[in-house]
Amino acid sequence: MNNAKFIVIEGLEGAGKSTAINCVLNVLHQHRVGEVIQTREPGGTVLAEKLRSLVKEEHEGEVLQDISELLIMYAARVQLVENKIKPALAQNTWVLGDRHDLSSQAYQGGGRQLSQDIMSNLKQTALGDFKPDLTLYLDIDPEIGLQRARGRGELDRIEKMDLSFFERVRARYTELAQLDKTIITINANQTIEQVAHDIEVALNQWFSNGQTI
Amino acid sequence: MNNAKFIVIEGLEGAGKSTAINCVLNVLHQHRVGEVIQTREPGGTVLAEKLRSLVKEEHEGEVLQDISELLIMYAARVQLVENKIKPALAQNTWVLGDRHDLSSQAYQGGGRQLSQDIMSNLKQTALGDFKPDLTLYLDIDPEIGLQRARGRGELDRIEKMDLSFFERVRARYTELAQLDKTIITINANQTIEQVAHDIEVALNQWFSNGQTI
Repeated sequence: MNNAKFIVIEGLEGAGKSTAINCVLNVLHQHRVGEVIQTREPGGTVLAEKLRSLVKEEHEGEVLQDISELLIMYAARVQLVENKIKPALAQNTWVLGDRHDLSSQAYQGGGRQLSQDIMSNLKQTALGDFKPDLTLYLDIDPEIGLQRARGRGELDRIEKMDLSFFERVRARYTELAQLDKTIITINANQTIEQVAHDIEVALNQWFSNGQTI
Repeated sequence: MNNAKFIVIEGLEGAGKSTAINCVLNVLHQHRVGEVIQTREPGGTVLAEKLRSLVKEEHEGEVLQDISELLIMYAARVQLVENKIKPALAQNTWVLGDRHDLSSQAYQGGGRQLSQDIMSNLKQTALGDFKPDLTLYLDIDPEIGLQRARGRGELDRIEKMDLSFFERVRARYTELAQLDKTIITINANQTIEQVAHDIEVALNQWFSNGQTI
């Protein structure tokens, strides 16, 4: 029986996604799910990584329009989903993603304030009914998250946005997490050890419920 | 009074777009419209040209999904429209475009057979009500056009498609040209001299009608 799942880690800069990913990998291995491939968004295929670079770099001062940014994110996402995630799941290989569609909803929809019509039309066009089986949303106060992210070095174009941008991103994350039963919110303001513990508990619970929430 | 217009040349490979562009420029200068900037699609800005390269190149054998191709085309188009075409028109500068949205309708909608819903949703999302004031569609038999284009050297990813693809592209071009009063169809199967003559007549007619058809 094909039972592979697509699990995604979401959250603001500095929320601790990398630590969370290692923690999820450990739990998946304890449950003997077999091979797990990891993806990141935007990116994860040859072309999608090139698109990732285009949205992160400067282009001789040319303004990147909000809609263009969104269209490029979705082009990268379609490449990843169709060329990598769906084929892996079809071969019964689990997929663990560092960001997915919820990031667009939060950053371009919430942060950049693109309209709900645009967001839902594009999602439907690009992805249809495809969605993760489980999302762990690491909820963090943007001030704490940005402080951590800034401590790591140079900031990219998105990380340079001001605090109110990230507050809108967090608000949209929170709103969507409340509406979708497949999203579990983890309090990422806690210590790394406590966050890791909460993820482990949530995932074990999900497994004992037959991989539903 | 701001009277600048956006004129677009459309048509299959080998339809004679470059010759048509020179012919249109001559007529515009005869009518003393002032400065005319030229654009090409996909492309025409720093970022849009990078996106153009991405859709034309190979990526280590990775399949470019039809929807991704369309999303990238629209990202490039938004950059061009918002950063170059609209600012030019606002400064009363005429714009002459080598391809625009009708190419997506014909190639991705007709050729790749993407659904009408997808095509119209994306167009609305990316462009709203923005459209050319006048489009000259150079209608050519794909067999003749491709023969001309192939004579020019190496073919790109799209030019390598088979004849039935270009027949669908032409059918969609023809269908949309019949529905839209701002599109004039020029018979491009004729000699270059006759095509140039027809363009000149059509443009002069458009000017004497007060720049409407």
